[in-house]
Amino acid sequence: MRVDIVRRFVVAFLFTALAAAPLVASPQAARAQADPLPSWNAGPTKAAVLNFVAEAVREGGPDFVPPAERIATFDNDGTLWSEQPVYFQAEFAFERVRALAPQHPEWATEEPFKTILTGDRTALANLGEQAFTDLLGATHAGMTVEDFEGQVKHWLATARHPRFDRPYTELVYQPMLELLAHLRANGFKTYIVSGGGLDFMRAFTEATYGIPPEQVIGSSVVTEFRLDGETPTIVRLPEVEFIDDGPGKAVGIARVIGRRPVFAAGNSDGDLQMLQWATMEGGARFGLIVHHTDAVREWAYDAPSAIGQLKEALVQAPQQGWLVVDMKADWKVVYPFERK
Amino acid sequence: MRVDIVRRFVVAFLFTALAAAPLVASPQAARAQADPLPSWNAGPTKAAVLNFVAEAVREGGPDFVPPAERIATFDNDGTLWSEQPVYFQAEFAFERVRALAPQHPEWATEEPFKTILTGDRTALANLGEQAFTDLLGATHAGMTVEDFEGQVKHWLATARHPRFDRPYTELVYQPMLELLAHLRANGFKTYIVSGGGLDFMRAFTEATYGIPPEQVIGSSVVTEFRLDGETPTIVRLPEVEFIDDGPGKAVGIARVIGRRPVFAAGNSDGDLQMLQWATMEGGARFGLIVHHTDAVREWAYDAPSAIGQLKEALVQAPQQGWLVVDMKADWKVVYPFERK
Repeated sequence: MRVDIVRRFVVAFLFTALAAAPLVASPQAARAQADPLPSWNAGPTKAAVLNFVAEAVREGGPDFVPPAERIATFDNDGTLWSEQPVYFQAEFAFERVRALAPQHPEWATEEPFKTILTGDRTALANLGEQAFTDLLGATHAGMTVEDFEGQVKHWLATARHPRFDRPYTELVYQPMLELLAHLRANGFKTYIVSGGGLDFMRAFTEATYGIPPEQVIGSSVVTEFRLDGETPTIVRLPEVEFIDDGPGKAVGIARVIGRRPVFAAGNSDGDLQMLQWATMEGGARFGLIVHHTDAVREWAYDAPSAIGQLKEALVQAPQQGWLVVDMKADWKVVYPFERK
Repeated sequence: MRVDIVRRFVVAFLFTALAAAPLVASPQAARAQADPLPSWNAGPTKAAVLNFVAEAVREGGPDFVPPAERIATFDNDGTLWSEQPVYFQAEFAFERVRALAPQHPEWATEEPFKTILTGDRTALANLGEQAFTDLLGATHAGMTVEDFEGQVKHWLATARHPRFDRPYTELVYQPMLELLAHLRANGFKTYIVSGGGLDFMRAFTEATYGIPPEQVIGSSVVTEFRLDGETPTIVRLPEVEFIDDGPGKAVGIARVIGRRPVFAAGNSDGDLQMLQWATMEGGARFGLIVHHTDAVREWAYDAPSAIGQLKEALVQAPQQGWLVVDMKADWKVVYPFERK
């Protein structure tokens, strides 16, 4: 139970993202190519994806999807960008603690700040719920939404991933960028539906994925409207409002979009209910699971795993007809920089 | 305090709406005409609206608005359709009570059902918070979102407004339909931001206003994802999740859209913070208030008024440069049926 609560906080606020560098594979580029998915290896996986889209737009066909119903939802961490060794949003939170430490001498002896400042991430994972509440309050609240987004953008522009020594926004999956572009080129509206923080993601999703702020659904803190003289602001408070994970993903989709998606992509059990909501019942529908099988180019993990556990969704995939993408076998390249 | 709480419930759940009949003034029709706002009388009000839109799309001009930033938000009750003698969503709730009464013989003596069944609306307004919670539970919860929308659609197709003896969806403002169409024809994304119920509004906004479900922001109840055998559903629970009124409108806009609107239209103090959020600070911005001044064709009211009180927003209008539309003087027709 305790672990579960901690996991929810972790999932929601400390732990996912991508940054502001404009990346490859614009819709235009994808359309200009004969093959809209050049980074996918030929085979049944790629064929299934291409076939779904082709049938969705074939008017009069049995699997035609009317334009207004072309809603595609994507998880972010582990589905559009990497999530190892820790959700990228956690790295942001840790960096904020380091940046704020000089103003907080008391943190040298106070948890979880003490552990974060010593850099012992294993110890951090065992700190419990209160630690994450404290971390949320110290790094994700007490400022306007605008200021928070500025902090995220600054971090994305300066931080580098420990393994690849590159900005976090470069650790996006080139094949998924191509898939997003291909769906949009065929009239689909692409959404992110992530346990990650709503405002954290909005700082980079438009530049990185071509997904505008109004098509991002995520976990949120309570916010408040304030009029500061003649300046209207929205202020972030240190209180969780909504956890967009597990069943929360289906709830978030119903609330924000108000239509059932016909396409959903995820990579963990946190995406199970989104996949069920999108694909069970109804006409032409497509569920996709990114399976992390490539320990050399990315990471190999599923269950049990502290981050991105994939167990139940993998069991249900064959019953529900969800496509399991084998990262190692199905993707020609993982990251855009491999193409250079 | 008590009154305030009751008002919030009233505003949120019992009381506003428009229905499913496809109405006049499609974007195409508006574009085909030389005058995109034929139901507005010539004069400074109409000129101000047309000028804002013309300048917003004039590239290189000082008031140019980039396409992605062309976000326009509209209140619903009293701004896009009428709200008298009671919010239309209240009529729906009362009708549901009458429909369900045969299964609830105990309602003959239990409040607020007893009062609703006797039809004494004045008494109803004095019932207090618990009454509205009970009414919400009895009429707006305990079913799937899909079933609820079915009930709303059925009501809209069969119910008639007591004064006009017409479906509620015919009591929309023709000049505002033209304004919505004109904004969309110029690349604006039009949203509804209302204290009314989210799922209640989604039952008719697309057919009535051309506003799709994903562009509706409203008050909501807590919902839950359930898997009923092989059938995934979202179930409405009898608990208020969010009140999209007053400062909540600015909060709802920030959460769902993630951008500040450049255009906002309302008609009451419940729209004050939305108007402030949209128009104070920044470049080209436009605030509009529909002032109910026409006791003959519609209703004349502002403050004090149980529904749609307009006082503070009217005081701030000249300071903030918000356009106050005088319904009686500025609108050639109020409802679409007047044109026939």
